[in-house]
Amino acid sequence: MRIGTIIGNVWATRKEDGLTGLKFLFVQLEDTGGKPIDAPLIAADRIGAGIGDTVMVTTGSAARFAIPERDVPVDAVIIGIVDSIDVESR
Amino acid sequence: MRIGTIIGNVWATRKEDGLTGLKFLFVQLEDTGGKPIDAPLIAADRIGAGIGDTVMVTTGSAARFAIPERDVPVDAVIIGIVDSIDVESR
Amino acid sequence: MRIGTIIGNVWATRKEDGLTGLKFLFVQLEDTGGKPIDAPLIAADRIGAGIGDTVMVTTGSAARFAIPERDVPVDAVIIGIVDSIDVESR
Amino acid sequence: MRIGTIIGNVWATRKEDGLTGLKFLFVQLEDTGGKPIDAPLIAADRIGAGIGDTVMVTTGSAARFAIPERDVPVDAVIIGIVDSIDVESR
Amino acid sequence: MRIGTIIGNVWATRKEDGLTGLKFLFVQLEDTGGKPIDAPLIAADRIGAGIGDTVMVTTGSAARFAIPERDVPVDAVIIGIVDSIDVESR
Repeated sequence: MRIGTIIGNVWATRKEDGLTGLKFLFVQLEDTGGKPIDAPLIAADRIGAGIGDTVMVTTGSAARFAIPERDVPVDAVIIGIVDSIDVESR
Repeated sequence: MRIGTIIGNVWATRKEDGLTGLKFLFVQLEDTGGKPIDAPLIAADRIGAGIGDTVMVTTGSAARFAIPERDVPVDAVIIGIVDSIDVESR
Repeated sequence: MRIGTIIGNVWATRKEDGLTGLKFLFVQLEDTGGKPIDAPLIAADRIGAGIGDTVMVTTGSAARFAIPERDVPVDAVIIGIVDSIDVESR
Repeated sequence: MRIGTIIGNVWATRKEDGLTGLKFLFVQLEDTGGKPIDAPLIAADRIGAGIGDTVMVTTGSAARFAIPERDVPVDAVIIGIVDSIDVESR
Repeated sequence: MRIGTIIGNVWATRKEDGLTGLKFLFVQLEDTGGKPIDAPLIAADRIGAGIGDTVMVTTGSAARFAIPERDVPVDAVIIGIVDSIDVESR
């Protein structure tokens, strides 16, 4: 999993069946100090994350296991809203 | 998922069984500001995307779930044509 | 698999069902000389790893096979605590 | 999927059961202008691609769906020999 | 698949069930000229590869298909010991 911040929304009216009703958010992945990592990705959200929230994102085939139907073409999903992190300085 | 723009077509007459009838498009992935990310990839299209369209792309094993047969060797698929995005400046 | 060091914890109260009870740790992946590789990732831990431990991490769909339920949206897991490595200088 | 050029062969007598009879080729992935992307990878070939051919390559779990047995440890496969590409200059 | 050289061993006494008995080796992935690519990864070995051997490595979900039990959290495996490669200079 990766940590990141919700930075926006994406809307697509014309899309694959099975995606209707899913909310898609842009997530900027970050390192533990908040520095952006790579380009923002789009993750499905089912737990009500909003702009500015720090979240945990699961990518790859595991993402489907957060969607009850599971047989959807989704490769990234928000699995938690982060309360706090505690990282040791090295 | 990633966002990108359809930039071209690819044709292959000699190909694996099961791919006949699928349309393959080059997609240039982009960040939320339209800056290209990595080299273009080839995604299967079933929703009628065309050159210049901004699209959402699913990669990896999840891509097969957008293909009714599912047992096809496809690792990227266009799942939606983007109407608009709304990204917060940070 | 990759080798890395546990550097911290992450807490999320609001999260996907099925993740309750799982411990999530930040792991800094490293090369065989201990040099950090990429940004820290979050891995589920079921074997009791702690801050400073050198661990083996499995990512992708294989990670679920370390979780008894298996149908959880987890894409990285700690599979072992490293006793020692022996790498040839080249 | 990615586009690339067949640049060589690899032979391994001692290998996992189930791989006997599969042909393995080095593919140099490229961007749409023919510029090399990353290091060459090894892909299984079942459609008779040869040195110099431009091909489409599927990677990840989808690759197995091009192998009739499917239960083989193969993570990249050649799925088509490219006749032509048509990419818009931007 | 990728090509690489076995450069070392890793030992972990405390590990996930199901991994007992599997041998784990560090593999330095390389390009076709022997130049190192990325940091070394850890691959399971069932075919008796040793330090200095040039090997083929499968990563991702396909790796499990080289392990008879298959339900193990392993994301990389050595699938062959390379006899020779033949790459065209370009």
